[in-house]
Amino acid sequence: VIDPARPRDLLIHDASIVDVITQSTYRGWVAIQDGRFVEVEEGDAPDAAALPARERFDARGATLQPGLIDAHMHIESSLITPRRFAEAVLPRGTTTIVQDPHEVANVLGASGIRAMIHAAQGLPLRVYSAVSSCVPATSAAIETPNASITPDEIAALAREPGVIALGEVMDFQGLIDGDAHLRAIVAAGGEAGLSLEGHVPNLEGAALSRYLAHGIRSDHTLSTPAKLREELRKGAFVMLQEKSLSPEVVAAVMALPDRSRVMLISDDVMPNRLGDGHLDRLVTLATSLGWAPLDAAAAASLRPATYFGVRDLGAIAPGYHADFLLLPAVNAFPPERVYRAGVLVADGGRALGVAGVDGAIDLPRTPFAQRRVAPASLRLPLPDGEQRATARVIAVNPINSFTRLLEREVTFRDGFPAMPDLCAAAVIPRAAFAAAAPAPTPVVGLIEGFGLQRGAWASTFAHDSHNVFTLGCDPAAMARALAVVLEAGGGMAFDPGDGRAPLLLPLPLAGLLSDAPLADVARDFDALERELRAAGARVRNPILLLTLLPLSVSPEAKLTDKGVVDVAARRILSVLTDASATP
Amino acid sequence: VIDPARPRDLLIHDASIVDVITQSTYRGWVAIQDGRFVEVEEGDAPDAAALPARERFDARGATLQPGLIDAHMHIESSLITPRRFAEAVLPRGTTTIVQDPHEVANVLGASGIRAMIHAAQGLPLRVYSAVSSCVPATSAAIETPNASITPDEIAALAREPGVIALGEVMDFQGLIDGDAHLRAIVAAGGEAGLSLEGHVPNLEGAALSRYLAHGIRSDHTLSTPAKLREELRKGAFVMLQEKSLSPEVVAAVMALPDRSRVMLISDDVMPNRLGDGHLDRLVTLATSLGWAPLDAAAAASLRPATYFGVRDLGAIAPGYHADFLLLPAVNAFPPERVYRAGVLVADGGRALGVAGVDGAIDLPRTPFAQRRVAPASLRLPLPDGEQRATARVIAVNPINSFTRLLEREVTFRDGFPAMPDLCAAAVIPRAAFAAAAPAPTPVVGLIEGFGLQRGAWASTFAHDSHNVFTLGCDPAAMARALAVVLEAGGGMAFDPGDGRAPLLLPLPLAGLLSDAPLADVARDFDALERELRAAGARVRNPILLLTLLPLSVSPEAKLTDKGVVDVAARRILSVLTDASATP
Repeated sequence: VIDPARPRDLLIHDASIVDVITQSTYRGWVAIQDGRFVEVEEGDAPDAAALPARERFDARGATLQPGLIDAHMHIESSLITPRRFAEAVLPRGTTTIVQDPHEVANVLGASGIRAMIHAAQGLPLRVYSAVSSCVPATSAAIETPNASITPDEIAALAREPGVIALGEVMDFQGLIDGDAHLRAIVAAGGEAGLSLEGHVPNLEGAALSRYLAHGIRSDHTLSTPAKLREELRKGAFVMLQEKSLSPEVVAAVMALPDRSRVMLISDDVMPNRLGDGHLDRLVTLATSLGWAPLDAAAAASLRPATYFGVRDLGAIAPGYHADFLLLPAVNAFPPERVYRAGVLVADGGRALGVAGVDGAIDLPRTPFAQRRVAPASLRLPLPDGEQRATARVIAVNPINSFTRLLEREVTFRDGFPAMPDLCAAAVIPRAAFAAAAPAPTPVVGLIEGFGLQRGAWASTFAHDSHNVFTLGCDPAAMARALAVVLEAGGGMAFDPGDGRAPLLLPLPLAGLLSDAPLADVARDFDALERELRAAGARVRNPILLLTLLPLSVSPEAKLTDKGVVDVAARRILSVLTDASATP
Repeated sequence: VIDPARPRDLLIHDASIVDVITQSTYRGWVAIQDGRFVEVEEGDAPDAAALPARERFDARGATLQPGLIDAHMHIESSLITPRRFAEAVLPRGTTTIVQDPHEVANVLGASGIRAMIHAAQGLPLRVYSAVSSCVPATSAAIETPNASITPDEIAALAREPGVIALGEVMDFQGLIDGDAHLRAIVAAGGEAGLSLEGHVPNLEGAALSRYLAHGIRSDHTLSTPAKLREELRKGAFVMLQEKSLSPEVVAAVMALPDRSRVMLISDDVMPNRLGDGHLDRLVTLATSLGWAPLDAAAAASLRPATYFGVRDLGAIAPGYHADFLLLPAVNAFPPERVYRAGVLVADGGRALGVAGVDGAIDLPRTPFAQRRVAPASLRLPLPDGEQRATARVIAVNPINSFTRLLEREVTFRDGFPAMPDLCAAAVIPRAAFAAAAPAPTPVVGLIEGFGLQRGAWASTFAHDSHNVFTLGCDPAAMARALAVVLEAGGGMAFDPGDGRAPLLLPLPLAGLLSDAPLADVARDFDALERELRAAGARVRNPILLLTLLPLSVSPEAKLTDKGVVDVAARRILSVLTDASATP
């Protein structure tokens, strides 16, 4: 509670203050007490006798603007723990995130979500959380899940500190079709007062309405001007991420008479991109495409706060949390200084106060007791002597994660594909690596268009169930890559297939995260991508694509431990069209 | 929870749908289930086989726009009960109000607030409530209060149905000065998650900031372009009422890049104005002054809902409450039909479903056991034989409720003012009329500029403590008017002073409200104003002014049971400048 009689903790004068509400700037001063702005005034500051302050800071004309607020994101996409994430993004000007720990949730369920919430407590970054809604993302008939979340767990998690949202309801078709479990999940989130987050690629008209009618209030998937307008019209708030920021979309945003329901968000940022910026990069990109600078700043500060009903965040205003940036000019990222609750948390590109936070995150470190996959098990079970068969092949494309399902006459060598540009891939349930599990016998699928000419990839980070994924040009290399990953307790590895040792990015926390600094993780990640490209991979984001190949809710065809997924039809197909050959 | 398999309750087709978000209209259809919109679509509706509905309605091109939401208002200002208020405003297109039962609160405290909340349950009007924060509005040294509210009571009332706000914190100076009780009240409201409503006439700069810094998020007092911009800049939402709607203010609103924090509200509507319209009249006035019509509609529907964090109200959109109007064109009030939660609640100017609601409101009906005031007690206690004295006179002005404090040489006759345009007035605590109370000996004050030439006024509705107020040209008429009001259990009365019987508007519920239909109350109210004018009253709104004369927080001078209030100095002055003459 503000006490006017006590001295202020900090007074900053001679600043150029950014007002994201009336979208203007003015020369003035601010005074802070107990982490909140009290005075926010135009003109000269009173002297120390008139308004005592424990610290006075001369901004020398620097711009003072609200810290950035990321309304929708997944820390796990950066492969690092919450504290390492805070360390990475605070110097970029992000002072608040709303995390949806969807990946940890799919591996560890409610206990994983709870661990991610608790890992964020005490960080200099302000962290709100969404409770992941679609765990598992699809039915057990499509892939073997590692966790599930019940409506009762949603209600319990809603009472954890900082929980303000139900994470994106990805199974839009399930909800539209009236799936009872999903309806109960959404109802539990609504009853708990959570903001219900959406995820609706390619949905329009009455189908979109029937989805939103459950109370879902946002979408952050790829946008177009028409989709933007329809979603706004239907009461949804629109969150624009990098892939949505086209000149056409920005022009449509700027043409709106009311932009208060449009935000900028990061969603997923791979570790090797995070060094280039976080939400600040979106603001910069948006303005480069014609978005008015102060409006773009509002779209990444005030509007997310308003959206979530957080009344005291996102602006330089009395009573608001004193989360702000000092920079040379409006949106001139990275900021020179970053404050959260009136405390300096990043200075000259370096985060402060993160190292002192206990980095222990309560996620299991050694989930993989068995660590060997027999190379022979990575061959297709062809009829005796046969080396040709008609097979279902998943064709990737070089730009994004959409795939096509093709039928091909495939030539094999000992049950392994032996044709240009055709790799084998397999998904093995995590449970297969439990101590008492029998040796896994994976379903082996065929992937076209990735480009790999030698070596093999293995990863325990593989959307959305995060079973163990491998792809390669020979079974021995695949087995070696898998062994390296499993021995590390999880991670991503590439065996070059040329005699050199495999490269490893260890992700020992739940097989998803590293507690190493971002720079280390990004270095290993870059090295893996370099090696993948050197071995022939020719897609734009090879690791991203590899982690999405098992994502069974994304069109047109994916590979899980059950087989080839026909995503639209929600069914499993055998790899060989002679269905007797594979389960 | 929406069930796509069940038929819709109502389908309306061939409507011109108003989208207050993208601020456009389109021809389309809506379908409703369980009180919420499901489909909200452009174009032709599906036939009954494709989408079964219990009722189909052909709008024949009529405009379908969101019901109006009044974010700040006091039912008591219209002198009628919540159900009579609902009956009056539903046909005008108001489907939601946020009431602040400030007057009942000042008479009956928490139990009165609870009664007003409960009286709104089950009404066809959607009623949210604010818990009145400033009860009493000022200290007991300034006037005798009839009730008080504690922080614990705020916390308890916050759990009552539909409570979403802490009512306007009127004592801005007290809060700025760090008044402990007021800080505790505001903190209790904040901790309960309530929206904290403000009231800051004439406050700017650091003083305004120190007030808002307590988390207060709105103001609805008289606005100017400069005040509008400063309040927005400082994070407050601005609520514009009739007296704020100047061409300059509307031009300033339309020049804002973001109008999402600007709303239209009614605040106080006297019963004789309510027949001319409610919030619809503000929308009409705003557009006549140049406010874009669809933006004005948003300012009285979507924005209040967003402001209060009500996510599913205020737009024609899937999942939103189906509260809407059918009218000939955008903002062509009054609407032909009004729906709340998909149910017809007003048709052709007539409210439906109100009469069936139990009108019993749990407010005491007979608070006045003693009903007589001796005329002699309404004379000033001048020194023996003296008929001239220097006195403090409260001068009213013809336009608004602001007053000036003057010193005058006054001529008396038997202690009663005997000069042109000078009336006597008195405020008597309600407690003086309790069964065991001694005969009241009121402080008699002097009022200049009201114009009354004969007769007397009495009222139990007298801001903010609602003690018993009288003003008149002779003590006998004042005593008669008081007797009529007290015998009625409360109300407003005028004794013409010409031998005719007094006119009475009975307000038997807490001495503030009538459960009669609005038309009856407005008729009596108009008759009273007509008689006041016929007797010489020459101010714009005579009854309003009379009810505000005891309002001890409004500048520059007011009259309470304690004496003349110097509002800025917060102290009581004697009427006669020889302080020994009066207490």
